Parts: sequence; C-alpha cells; structure tokens
Amino acid sequence: MYVTGIGRTKFGMLNKSLHELLYDAIYKALHDSTMDIADIDIIIVANFLSGCTQSQLHLGSVVSSLLPGLNLPAYRIEAACASGGLAIYQALSMSEKFNNILVVGGERLNTIPNKDLTKNIAMAGDFLRDQQEGLIFPAQYAFVASQYFKKYGATHNDLALVTLKNYANASKNPLAHFNYKDISLDTINFSQMICSPLRLFDCCAISDGAAAIILSREKKTDRDIEIIGAGARTDVISLSNRKDFTTFASTKLAAKDAYNMAKIRPKDIDIAELHDCFSIAELVAMEDLDFCKIGEGISLIRASETTLSGSLPINTDGGLLGDGHPIGATGIAQIYEIVEQLRGESKYRQIHNAKLGLTHNVGGVGGTAVVLILEGPS
Amino acid sequence: MYVTGIGRTKFGMLNKSLHELLYDAIYKALHDSTMDIADIDIIIVANFLSGCTQSQLHLGSVVSSLLPGLNLPAYRIEAACASGGLAIYQALSMSEKFNNILVVGGERLNTIPNKDLTKNIAMAGDFLRDQQEGLIFPAQYAFVASQYFKKYGATHNDLALVTLKNYANASKNPLAHFNYKDISLDTINFSQMICSPLRLFDCCAISDGAAAIILSREKKTDRDIEIIGAGARTDVISLSNRKDFTTFASTKLAAKDAYNMAKIRPKDIDIAELHDCFSIAELVAMEDLDFCKIGEGISLIRASETTLSGSLPINTDGGLLGDGHPIGATGIAQIYEIVEQLRGESKYRQIHNAKLGLTHNVGGVGGTAVVLILEGPS
Repeated sequence: MYVTGIGRTKFGMLNKSLHELLYDAIYKALHDSTMDIADIDIIIVANFLSGCTQSQLHLGSVVSSLLPGLNLPAYRIEAACASGGLAIYQALSMSEKFNNILVVGGERLNTIPNKDLTKNIAMAGDFLRDQQEGLIFPAQYAFVASQYFKKYGATHNDLALVTLKNYANASKNPLAHFNYKDISLDTINFSQMICSPLRLFDCCAISDGAAAIILSREKKTDRDIEIIGAGARTDVISLSNRKDFTTFASTKLAAKDAYNMAKIRPKDIDIAELHDCFSIAELVAMEDLDFCKIGEGISLIRASETTLSGSLPINTDGGLLGDGHPIGATGIAQIYEIVEQLRGESKYRQIHNAKLGLTHNVGGVGGTAVVLILEGPS
Repeated sequence: MYVTGIGRTKFGMLNKSLHELLYDAIYKALHDSTMDIADIDIIIVANFLSGCTQSQLHLGSVVSSLLPGLNLPAYRIEAACASGGLAIYQALSMSEKFNNILVVGGERLNTIPNKDLTKNIAMAGDFLRDQQEGLIFPAQYAFVASQYFKKYGATHNDLALVTLKNYANASKNPLAHFNYKDISLDTINFSQMICSPLRLFDCCAISDGAAAIILSREKKTDRDIEIIGAGARTDVISLSNRKDFTTFASTKLAAKDAYNMAKIRPKDIDIAELHDCFSIAELVAMEDLDFCKIGEGISLIRASETTLSGSLPINTDGGLLGDGHPIGATGIAQIYEIVEQLRGESKYRQIHNAKLGLTHNVGGVGGTAVVLILEGPS
C-alpha cells in the first residue's frame, strides 16, 4: 500500500489530552493527503497504556467520538512499544478489503507519578517472572548491554556515540522532544547511573504525542511512498527463556520476511529508523537487521557511518532517544520520518538520493518486532 | 473464511491463570481441527483488562511464550467487551494474506476486589463525561431500560423473561458459568435492585474464561462452517451525545454491512447469539438487528419465540447472562456456539434444521458493535 498522508504532533511533556493529541495527528495526516475523512474506510488506533494512565480503554469508540456521524469500524491494537508498527503491519494485511486505512497512535504518559509509570511500562514484560523481581526495562536492557560489552569489547563510549548522534539529529527536528544544541560525550558518559552500564542518556524519556498515517491501495500523487516490505514476529517474553541477550530473534525473522517481500538486500537500505529505546538497542538492531555482521555495530558507530553524512544514516529524526517515545505513536512516527525523507521534505536533516528506507519497532525486550520497508520515487 | 476449529474453557470463577486459560482454549481449538499449530500463520489475542487485573500487557508475546520456537506474528486487539468479535472481524479482513489465523480471547477477572473491577470495566465508557459522574455500566443500561419501558410499554417482567430463558439454556450447557435448574420469574423479579429498573438477575456476572477459533481460507472438512457476512461499526462513546438510548446505531450499521455481504435478509436467520450483558440489551439488539420492528421485541419474548423451541432461538448457550462474560472471550464463544449448533453437535440444546446463524458483540453501551453471519451445510 501507499502512504498517502502523514501527520504528527510535537513530542514531549505536553499539556494536551490524549483525545486532542489523536485528533491533531489525524487532522494533520488528512491535511497532508489529498483526501477527506469521508474517504477513510477503517481506523486502527495504536496505544499501550491509556487504561492505566487515562482510565480510558475502548479507544476505537473514543476516536469515533472525535469524528461524529461517521460510525467507521475502529479498534485498538496493543503490542507494548511496538503497538504503532503492529497497527501498520495489520493495516497492510487488510489491503484487499479496504481502500484507505487511517492508522493513528498516541500516548499521554505525563499524567501519573513516574514511580507508577515505571510499574505500568513494566507490564510489557513478564509478570510471572520479571516484574515481581523488579526487572523493569532499564534493568533488562542493562543485561543486554553487559553481555554485549563482554562479547564484543564495546564500552560505554560506544553507547554514548549513539546518543550523541541521535540528540544531534533531534536538534534539527522542530517536533522532537529534545532540541539541545550542545550535548557533549562527557555529559553523556558521566550522566547519572541508572542501571549499570546504562546511564541517564542511554534511556529514552517519557514523552506524550501522537502520529497518524493514511494507507491507500492506490497511489494518489507523486508524493506518495509505497511500503514494499513488512514483517512482524514475536519471541518468548522473558529474557530468562533466551540463550543470547545480544540478538533478538523477533527482529531477525521480521527483517527476513520484510526483505523477502521487498525483494531487496540489507545493503540496499539508504536510511533507517531503529528502535533505540536504550542506546544499546540501536547497536543490537543494526546487527539483527544485517546492516553489519554480529558484533560489528560498534565499528559503524565509531566510523560515524550512521550520522546524517554517513553511508547509512540512522534515526535521522533523533530516534526514541532524541525525538521521543510516546509509545503508541512511535512506530507510526518512524514511518512519518522515512516518508518525509523519501519525499525530500526533511529540510535541515534531509538525506539526499535516499530511495529505500526501513523502520524497526520493538515491544518489550524483543518480545515483538516489526520491520517495514519503504520505497521512494526513482 | 471457514471456522475450522473451535475450543473454549468452562466459564466462571476459575482458579486458573490467564496464561492457562488461553493455552487451554488454543489447545482445544487445534484438537478440534485437522491442523497442527505449525499450520497457523498469525495469532490475534482479544483481551480487555489484563493490564489492570493481571499487571500484564503485551499479550501477543505472552501467547508466543506459550508456543516457544514458533515466533509467529501475534498481537492484541482491544475494543472493550467487543474485543473478541472485533478480533474475528479483523482476521476476516486479512483472508487474502494468511491461510490459517488463530483468534484467541480470554479474561481473568476474579483477581481483584469487585470495587476495583467495577472501576476498571467503566474504562470502556467515557472518562471525561461518564466515569467521573459514577456512570458505571449498570447505570448506563438502566437509562436504556427506563427509556425503553417508557417508549414501548415494557415492564420488568419482560426483562425477567429474557433472563429466565438464558438461564434455562445455560442449564443445558456444561461449560456455562451458571447451571441453576430452578430459577423462577419471582426470583428474578424480586432479586436485589442494582440500578432501577435493573435488578441482580438483569446483569451478567464476572466470569473468567477463554475461547479460541481457527479461521481458514480453505474448507478442510464437512464440519467447517463458513462466515459469510461481517460488519463492525462504532458510535460516539457517551450516551450523553446520543438522541435515542433505545437503539444502537453501531449495531444497525454493522448488521446492514453483514446482511449485505451475506446477501441474506434478517428473517433468514435461524439462530442468534446476542450481546445480553444486561437483559435489556437483548431486546434492543433484536430490534436493531431487524428480527422485529422497533418496540416489538417484547412481543417475541412474551410469545416464547426466542426459546429453544421457538421460531428464532436466541442465546442457546445461555448468553452473557447464563453462559458468562469473560470479556475478551465472549465474541469468540458466540462463534463457538453457532458453529456447534450448525454442525449439529449441541446435544441437549440442539436446534434442528438451523442453517444460518448470527452473532452480535457489543463494546460499552453501543460504542462498538460487531455482527457476523455463519452458514452451515445445506
């Protein structure tokens, strides 16, 4: 299908309700397209925590309330932090049945104390084993980083290079959560320890925000970008049931499906949005997506190959670290960025001559992964 | 698509985890089919409240953990009490992409105090207007009943006839939550007042349970039952934004879509499973589905036309009132019942010569409605 409209809000600590955020993103996606809301056949809403943070479930009907009189089919998809990506994967699977599908995702997190929020986010992990042991996500990804350091000789400075790059990219993105112009490697390397070896700047922040895209069976204008590959896979939810923490089977399998469907190879990808909920996750994803061999992600980051001027720019919008991670919106915002880049509308962070883009969205610590591949005009 | 396997647990207050319930239903659906788990291409999980009641979200990955090594695409759909029906609707929309789809839904509710549960279930209603006013669902459906009584001259005895029938049917269903043999009209009419005019027996109970079906593009055996019509529609979430409480636009529009797709008329339906979360909801649904004219549902129930020996048996398994309402499972259990009936495997409650069956699953107070139509062998 073709992405025929994109819209998003600014990400950050916003003083707007989830309703307003979703409405803003929908309105902007329609405005960006050549279509009217009456052309939409079905709506999919991606969200992770509105029950716990807004006391509001049944978001299909909530979105229907924002568009009174339409009575469209509408429902919510939840796959932890991969909710947005999964909603798009699922929309693509219905391409034979619907002409135009609106996918909107959003999250309003800054409504409850951080302590409660940490507990709520941990619901993406296994309750039986991990939550009750206090294994919140910074701790889970600290396991990943520790094992990666040991196996491949990486140090915290390699993680800091990921963060430095993503904050630099975010500073050129007016919609990003963080617009700092002058973060240094020292600031990152000596920031507060959260869970060794992960420090404050290795962890994405708590963001509010929403994003929406319209997917259409038929191309409407020359600005439309086709999604030519898609994969979504799962894995056992708990790290305790996995042998190797430094690779996610869900990502590898989803990528294989997406590359096969698109009939391309990993080296054909020009730009990518990876799920850097923690800095270490970007390195692991680069390897699982076959952008380099296992253990060689650190070489690419040290050689600046993934910066805006490198051979494979990654997270040009700032990623989850810099742009923000309003959970239900994240997978959709990744598509927003790639579409803008392939259209040539990214201004100060525009990558020239990019033709193939990839997005990678993860739930939990690899319990779910979605990979999508987009092709721009020749 | 064809329903090629069905499975469910007993409904009730069960001492089993959500994991066990989902596993049981999946196992039974596979056992009922001619297939192996390796034949399944994708899994959809329907659930409403596992975040609040089990501290467990990300159920796609949880189900993946029950089936280690498969790494299938799997994710959760939530549409309040219509989650199960919507998961099936969504699976049907992907029929071109996948050969065999497993849809499993379940709910474990009896883990937290009733007071908290009431508050959690209210999250299917509008937070901004209704939850904060204390408008929990018995109160919302009491509005529906009051207005219906006034408009059409119904009395509580008409509601009691609905409950009496559904409990009688449940007494012939060994998997039902309630198996009472001797409920009288007096017991129902003089049961505890919950929210006038609704009494205890007008309200479905809190049930645990799970149900699963396998949907296949191709017919495998003569026991397979085709789903020939489907509709899913939404409406504004709050009653305060509707003009008439005695009819649900979501049901009427979903039914129209389903009848058109199936190319049948309402009078062609032989048996139906309606969403009787409250007794009044069954009367409203009969009318919205065009089984009779508006206001004439009471005539049908008074004439016993919807009992097992009537012209249009409704809720032969006992419905939500008698069989139970383990929320995520409900829409799937409705299909379970119709498939068993059309196969001729319903034993003590078998309806003879039934060929066309309908299911109707509602979220909130008509914020979402799903209608599915099944055709048995000639």
